Amino acid sequence: MRILLTIEYDGTNYAGWQRQNNALSIQEVIENAIEKAVGHRCIVHVAGRTDAGVHAYAQRAHFDVDTTIPPEKISYALNLVLPEDIRIKESRLVSNDFHSRFCVKSKHYRYSIYCADQPCAIGRMYSTHVRNSLNVDAMKAAAAYLKGTHDFAAFQAAGSEVKDTVRTIDKIEVTQIGNLIYIDVMGKGFLYNMVRIIAGTLIDVGRGRYNAKHVLDILASKNRENAGATAPAKGLALVSINYGYETVK
Amino acid sequence: MRILLTIEYDGTNYAGWQRQNNALSIQEVIENAIEKAVGHRCIVHVAGRTDAGVHAYAQRAHFDVDTTIPPEKISYALNLVLPEDIRIKESRLVSNDFHSRFCVKSKHYRYSIYCADQPCAIGRMYSTHVRNSLNVDAMKAAAAYLKGTHDFAAFQAAGSEVKDTVRTIDKIEVTQIGNLIYIDVMGKGFLYNMVRIIAGTLIDVGRGRYNAKHVLDILASKNRENAGATAPAKGLALVSINYGYETVK
Repeated sequence: MRILLTIEYDGTNYAGWQRQNNALSIQEVIENAIEKAVGHRCIVHVAGRTDAGVHAYAQRAHFDVDTTIPPEKISYALNLVLPEDIRIKESRLVSNDFHSRFCVKSKHYRYSIYCADQPCAIGRMYSTHVRNSLNVDAMKAAAAYLKGTHDFAAFQAAGSEVKDTVRTIDKIEVTQIGNLIYIDVMGKGFLYNMVRIIAGTLIDVGRGRYNAKHVLDILASKNRENAGATAPAKGLALVSINYGYETVK
Repeated sequence: MRILLTIEYDGTNYAGWQRQNNALSIQEVIENAIEKAVGHRCIVHVAGRTDAGVHAYAQRAHFDVDTTIPPEKISYALNLVLPEDIRIKESRLVSNDFHSRFCVKSKHYRYSIYCADQPCAIGRMYSTHVRNSLNVDAMKAAAAYLKGTHDFAAFQAAGSEVKDTVRTIDKIEVTQIGNLIYIDVMGKGFLYNMVRIIAGTLIDVGRGRYNAKHVLDILASKNRENAGATAPAKGLALVSINYGYETVK
């Protein structure tokens, strides 16, 4: 049977989602947990890989398994053997033609910025510190220019080999709550590092390095060198994956 | 000159505020940092000690120092040598008769409870997980009975040698935001473990183990055995120390 997991993780201590040879990945830890719980090896297919240090509130991943554990109880069995920085929030039976990645309708990422004279101690692994106070209105205006369908070549990690760099941002919002500024970005798919480069660019706008409308010039240039820095991984979290009506809880 | 520090710390990796022989304390780390920054040893006097695993957003502590570093720059000098889970948010000159502990007008503690079927991974060190959904209205009603001046003997850690167990809670509030329930308690001073025992008792009320008004019976009994468990340290944070007009920023 095919099982879909909803997974929360604190990415601080992992080399990202994807299994690799010389560093501990979230995929490896979860696959090992499944093997312990059900007695055989499974390959877990994730909705969207995350980089080292990136967090997820509700990542999704599916795997095929042969077990007598009821689907909705698999989460409990896995949590018994998983470390406390990885938690399975839900496990459910899905049809065999469901695929955690190919069936994605939209993803929601949040980038968190902590603005203060000094960095925070509590929760320091979940946001990026910016010493300057940022002009949030300018950041909102710049974000509005990024909404919609554009060629985001300038917002893709240098060296990426993806040819079609047109993507659609369904929704992008900048919100300030106390010392924290959140950049929420929603869309079906993003280029590599795109959300972190958007965050770095909006931080530059917030600092007054260039004005909001300049992001249109950055888009038009299709040149990575014109956008802001790739904001640090720890400020990024995958908030949710939306599959549409069929699998939404 | 006498310097007052405002300190944020993540208590996860420390054996509490107070210096001790066989474990790393926040006091020791800060005193070592001061010695590195100013070149001589100082004893740091704290507003209110916290236990192992307890956090602080704005602890206060003073020390006497002989240095040419301007008072308001001492925070920067200390942050250069402190680990990232301890941050000095402010340093300021105070008069020589000011005392971080004796001048306290009130303290604000917050206890955080995460209510969900499964524990959280992100921020897991800053709240206590409760699997049951809690009756927040009952918790609010119970909290209201604790407000004011009472003999809190039943809410003091067993074995404490404090004789006068009368304390005053100026304000106590229970708030729910999503999966989190916050218990905010304000007063000039509390008995040892009092806020965590209040939290444990309100969790029992929220679970329906007894009704709200029963906290009056617990108070009247003056017997620690009748109150709830001491809720785990990691859910507790010292939010702020209020000294009144003279030193408020």
